[in-house]
Amino acid sequence: MASAEVGDNVLDGDPTIRALEERAATVLGMPAALWTPSGTMANVIALSLHLERGDRFLAPKDAHVLNSELGSAAWLAGGMPYALEHDAGPGRPKVETLAKAIGPRNVPYYLLRTALLCLENTHNAAGGAIIPPHEHAQLLATARRAGLRVHLDGARLWHAAVALGLPPAALTVGVDSVSACFSKGLGAPVGSVVAGNVTFVERARRMRQMLGGGVRQGGVLAAAALVALDRIGDLEGDHEKARRLAAGLADLGWEVDTPETNIVVARVADISVTLESLTAIGVLAMSTGTRVRFVAHRDLSVDDIDEALMRIKAGGHP
Amino acid sequence: MASAEVGDNVLDGDPTIRALEERAATVLGMPAALWTPSGTMANVIALSLHLERGDRFLAPKDAHVLNSELGSAAWLAGGMPYALEHDAGPGRPKVETLAKAIGPRNVPYYLLRTALLCLENTHNAAGGAIIPPHEHAQLLATARRAGLRVHLDGARLWHAAVALGLPPAALTVGVDSVSACFSKGLGAPVGSVVAGNVTFVERARRMRQMLGGGVRQGGVLAAAALVALDRIGDLEGDHEKARRLAAGLADLGWEVDTPETNIVVARVADISVTLESLTAIGVLAMSTGTRVRFVAHRDLSVDDIDEALMRIKAGGHP
Amino acid sequence: MASAEVGDNVLDGDPTIRALEERAATVLGMPAALWTPSGTMANVIALSLHLERGDRFLAPKDAHVLNSELGSAAWLAGGMPYALEHDAGPGRPKVETLAKAIGPRNVPYYLLRTALLCLENTHNAAGGAIIPPHEHAQLLATARRAGLRVHLDGARLWHAAVALGLPPAALTVGVDSVSACFSKGLGAPVGSVVAGNVTFVERARRMRQMLGGGVRQGGVLAAAALVALDRIGDLEGDHEKARRLAAGLADLGWEVDTPETNIVVARVADISVTLESLTAIGVLAMSTGTRVRFVAHRDLSVDDIDEALMRIKAGGHP
Amino acid sequence: MASAEVGDNVLDGDPTIRALEERAATVLGMPAALWTPSGTMANVIALSLHLERGDRFLAPKDAHVLNSELGSAAWLAGGMPYALEHDAGPGRPKVETLAKAIGPRNVPYYLLRTALLCLENTHNAAGGAIIPPHEHAQLLATARRAGLRVHLDGARLWHAAVALGLPPAALTVGVDSVSACFSKGLGAPVGSVVAGNVTFVERARRMRQMLGGGVRQGGVLAAAALVALDRIGDLEGDHEKARRLAAGLADLGWEVDTPETNIVVARVADISVTLESLTAIGVLAMSTGTRVRFVAHRDLSVDDIDEALMRIKAGGHP
Repeated sequence: MASAEVGDNVLDGDPTIRALEERAATVLGMPAALWTPSGTMANVIALSLHLERGDRFLAPKDAHVLNSELGSAAWLAGGMPYALEHDAGPGRPKVETLAKAIGPRNVPYYLLRTALLCLENTHNAAGGAIIPPHEHAQLLATARRAGLRVHLDGARLWHAAVALGLPPAALTVGVDSVSACFSKGLGAPVGSVVAGNVTFVERARRMRQMLGGGVRQGGVLAAAALVALDRIGDLEGDHEKARRLAAGLADLGWEVDTPETNIVVARVADISVTLESLTAIGVLAMSTGTRVRFVAHRDLSVDDIDEALMRIKAGGHP
Repeated sequence: MASAEVGDNVLDGDPTIRALEERAATVLGMPAALWTPSGTMANVIALSLHLERGDRFLAPKDAHVLNSELGSAAWLAGGMPYALEHDAGPGRPKVETLAKAIGPRNVPYYLLRTALLCLENTHNAAGGAIIPPHEHAQLLATARRAGLRVHLDGARLWHAAVALGLPPAALTVGVDSVSACFSKGLGAPVGSVVAGNVTFVERARRMRQMLGGGVRQGGVLAAAALVALDRIGDLEGDHEKARRLAAGLADLGWEVDTPETNIVVARVADISVTLESLTAIGVLAMSTGTRVRFVAHRDLSVDDIDEALMRIKAGGHP
Repeated sequence: MASAEVGDNVLDGDPTIRALEERAATVLGMPAALWTPSGTMANVIALSLHLERGDRFLAPKDAHVLNSELGSAAWLAGGMPYALEHDAGPGRPKVETLAKAIGPRNVPYYLLRTALLCLENTHNAAGGAIIPPHEHAQLLATARRAGLRVHLDGARLWHAAVALGLPPAALTVGVDSVSACFSKGLGAPVGSVVAGNVTFVERARRMRQMLGGGVRQGGVLAAAALVALDRIGDLEGDHEKARRLAAGLADLGWEVDTPETNIVVARVADISVTLESLTAIGVLAMSTGTRVRFVAHRDLSVDDIDEALMRIKAGGHP
Repeated sequence: MASAEVGDNVLDGDPTIRALEERAATVLGMPAALWTPSGTMANVIALSLHLERGDRFLAPKDAHVLNSELGSAAWLAGGMPYALEHDAGPGRPKVETLAKAIGPRNVPYYLLRTALLCLENTHNAAGGAIIPPHEHAQLLATARRAGLRVHLDGARLWHAAVALGLPPAALTVGVDSVSACFSKGLGAPVGSVVAGNVTFVERARRMRQMLGGGVRQGGVLAAAALVALDRIGDLEGDHEKARRLAAGLADLGWEVDTPETNIVVARVADISVTLESLTAIGVLAMSTGTRVRFVAHRDLSVDDIDEALMRIKAGGHP
C-alpha cells in the first residue's frame, strides 16, 4: 500500500486501481470491471443499470439486495423485489420456483415486468451456502430463456470457488454482471468490484460517480486488494476452522448446520440471551433473525477456535 | 354532470370536487379527503407520504400495490415491499404472520426499517375477499403497537361494507389513510379519493399536483361520483348476481369459490383455453394468474347472468 | 359527453379516448398521441422518457416545466434543469444562447450531459408569447445537430397556431414530443395529450399508468375535447378580446404589453395592492412575479371586457 | 496508515474513522461529522436530507453541486436547482440577488418551494474564490430569515481559512451542514466528511449506507486524513506558489486573475489549442469552460512552478 502508484480515479488516472480492475475482470471471467468503495454500491449500480423504473427483480429470500441494503434496490435502482423460496437448498430456489415467479412473457403494458434475476453465491444469510455449478447453469438458462438479465452478488464468491475447487470464473458463467468484495473474507481494507461487459462498465463508471464512489488516490486500497487476490486459496483454512467450530458446537449439544464455507449458523432458544452470554465470554457472533452466526476468518487461528469452544463449554449456552 | 358547478381544481376552486371530497371524507370516517384521477394515484400518493427512502412496507400477497401498479410503490414512493401470506383466509394474513414480518423495533441504522402496513379490503386478486372487522382491528393493533402506519386500499371498500351490513367508516377504524374508487363497482366515470387527516391531505394535494393529478373543471366527474355515493346499497344486487353465477358454474362442474362480494373466481385446467372459449361465446372474464375472474356489476342484469351460464353450458368449458 | 361511448382506458378499451388520441395526433402532426389527465402529467411523462438519470435539459426561463410543476422534472423525471435567457424576445432564447448552453458534445463520463431542449409555445409566463416558425426551425436545427431531443410544451399551442394563421402541425416540425391541453383556452373539462412516435407513445402509456393517469370511462371527457378541437378557430375571438383589454388598459395609463395571443400582462407598482383592488371590483387576475396577468377566454364576452375596463377606470389602479 | 487501528465502519466500529470524525467535527465547528468516500457523496447526502421531493435549492452559478455531480442533486436528492449570479464577486451572489431568488414565503401548495441555499467556499469553478466572513454572515441571515436551510460545500474550505487567517470553524457559522475533503488540497488519499448536528449525522449515516459509502477497515484512510488535518497550515505554501505562477503568466502576457487561494485561472483565445500545447510541454492544466485552470499543490515545488513558466515561455501560448 505504501508504495502504490496512485492518481485521480475520477479522471481515470489511478494506475493501481486500473490494474486491480483488469485483474479482477480476469479472475471473475468478465470483459471488464470497476472498483467501488463497497459491495452495496457494486450491487446498487448493477441493479440500477439492469432495471427500468418499476421493473420486478427476483432474488432468493433474505438475499443481501433484499434485506441488507436499506431498500436501495427499490428507491434508488427503481426495482420491485420478489423473494424466491430456498426450496432447492439453503439460499437456492428450484428452477421451477424461478420459472413460476418469472411468469408469462410479453405481458400487457399495464402489468409488472420481470427483468432481472439476482443470485447470491455464497448466500450470506443462508449460512454461506453455495450454489453448485449445475444449479447455477439451470437457473441461468431459465432466466435467459425468459429474457431476464442476471446479476450475481459474489461478495463471497471466492469462498464458493475455493470450496468447490473451481476458479471463480467458473461460477459466473452466463451472468450479465457480478459483484465481489475484497474486504470481507479476503481481508483487504475498503473495496469491491462490479464486473460486466465493456458497455456495462462504462455506464457503471458514470453511475459510480453519481453515487459518490469516484475517489482520488484509491491505489493505496487497490494495492491491498491485489495482494488479497493472490491469496484466495487461503480461504480453505477458514473453511476448515468453520468446520472445526461447527463440530465442536455440535459436540456441546448445539443445533448447528454443517458449514459449506466459512460461516457457522446455529439455532438457539433465545437469540438475545445467547448473544449476551457469548459476548460475556469474549466470543463475537451476530444474529441472523433467530439464529446465531459465527464467521471464521484469516485473523482467527485454529487455537482461537478451540479457545472459543472451551469458553462456550464453560460458560456459553445455546 | 351537465349541470355541475365547476372550477379550477389546481387553484382549489372546483366546488363540486370540494363537495365530493367532503362527502367522501364523511362516508369513509376520515377528517379529510382528496380527489384523484385513479386509485393507483391515490395509493401511490399515500405510500409516498408514509414512507421514507427505502422503508419496508408490508402488504398481503398479490395486493394491488404489489402487483398492479407497475412498481410505483418502489421507484416512485421509495418503498421496499414485503408480501404477507394469506394464512388467515383469502387476502388476509394472520396477526402472527404480520408480527413476525414486522420484526424487532429500533433496529440499528444499517438495517431495513419497516414503516407501513397496507391492507386491501376487499382484496381484488383474492376474489373480492373481505377483511372482517375483528381481524382488521387485530391487524391494526399489531401494526400500531410496532409503530407502523397503516394504509387501506379501499378501492372495493364499498363492497365489503355492503356485504357486512356496516357503514364504510366502520372498516377504516385506526388507519392513517384510505383510498377508495368511484369508477369500479360504483360505476361513475374517472375518479378516486385518498383520505386521511388534514395534514396528510394537504401534503397529498401537493403530491397529486406533482404527479399531474391536478385538473380543471373536474366537477363534471365529481357530480357523477356524488350520485354513486348515494347508491352504494345497490351493490347488494351485484353480490347477489355473483352468487348466482358462482352457483350456476358450480352446477356445471366448475371449481369455483363462493363469492364474498361481486367477484367470482374459478380454477381451470388451462387459463388461456378457457378465456378463449369464453370470449368466443361473448362472456367477458379476465385471468388472475391461473384462475378465471368474473365480475358482476351494475350494467349486468340477472338475465345476463343466466344467459352467460346458458352459453357456458353450451359452449364454454372450465 | 352524455352520449359518449366509453370503456376501460387502462385495458385500452375506451373508444372515445382512442378517437381523441387519433384526432389529436393528426392535428398535432405526430404519429401517435396519448390522453393524460393534465398537461403537467403530459410534460413529466415526456421528460421521464427523454432523460436518463441526471441528464441536463434546457428550457426558456420561467417555463412551465421549470417553475410550475413542483420540481417533478428533477425528482421524478430525473433531469437537471438549465434556464435559457429570453434574449430573442419574450419566451424565446437566441440560437447562440442555446448553442452555448448545450456546450461541447462527447463530454467525459464524469461530466453533466445535456440531452433535451424543452420549448414552450406560447410561453405562458412570458405573456402568451409565440415562437415564430423560423425561430422554431433554427432552435430545432441547433438542438438536433448537437444530438439533443426536443419536447414542445404546447399547452397553448392552439393560440400560437390561430394567431399565426397556421395549422398546429406546422408548429411541431421536428420535435420528438409535444404536449397540448384541452382544458385551458379550448375550454373542455379535464384533459391533455402527449404526442410522439409510436414507440414513444407506447412507453408513455406505461409511464402514465405508473403515475396513476390510467382512467376508466374517460370517454365522457374525450367527447368534450373532440368538440373543442373542432373549435380551435374560436380562439381568434379571445385574442381580439385580449387586444381590446390591453388597449383599454393602456388608455387608462397602465404599462401593458401588446398581447400576442389571449394573455395580457401589465407591470404595476405593487402587485398585492393591485390584485386586491381588482378583486374588490370583481375583476379576476393573477400575478406572475411582479406583473398582473389577465386572460381572455370563451366565457368572457366583449361586453365583459368593456365592463372590466369601466370598473378599473372607476376603482382599480395599476 | 500501516499502524491504524481498524474495524467495521458499517457496524460503527472503526476506531480511527471515529477519531477522524470527532476531530473533523471540532475543526469544522459542528456537533458531529461523518466520513464519506468522496465530496460528491458528502454533498448528495446533505442535499438528500435537507430537501423534500421537488424542493428548489439555490447555488452560485457553476457550483460543484450544479455542474460537477452528474445531476445527482436532481434525480437522487430530488432538488430543483436554481443558479445565482456571481454579482458580488467571483463565486459570490449579492444578498439582494439571493433574496430575490428566494421569492415570497408561504407560497400556495401548487407552487415550487425554495428550501435550501448551497454555498461553496472556496468556489472551485470561480477560481478558488473565497466568500469573506461578512458576506457569508449576510447570506446566512437572508437565507435563515426566509426559512431556508444552508449547506456549505467546503471541499476547499481549508484554503479559505488559511488565506483569511481564520480557523475553518469561523467559516461555517450558522450553516446546517458542511462538507469538506481530505483528498484534494490536503493530499490524503480517499475521503471526505459531512458535518452537522447529531440528528443530521445519524440520518446521514443511514443515507451513506444506502449509497454504498459504508466501508470496512477504513481506518487506513482515516489515519492519513488525521495527519492531513494537522497540516492545514501548509496550504499557505500552495497559495504562494499559485501567486508566483499567476504573476509569471501575467508577465508572459497571459490574461490571468490574481489567485485568492491555490487555483490560477487564465482566459485564452482557444482553450483546446492551449491545453494541447501545455500538455506537449508537460504542464498539466484543465479547462473550466473557456478558461485554463492550474492548481498549485503540495507535490509541486517552487522550482516546479518556475520550470513550468520557463517551458510556457518557450513553447506554450495563451
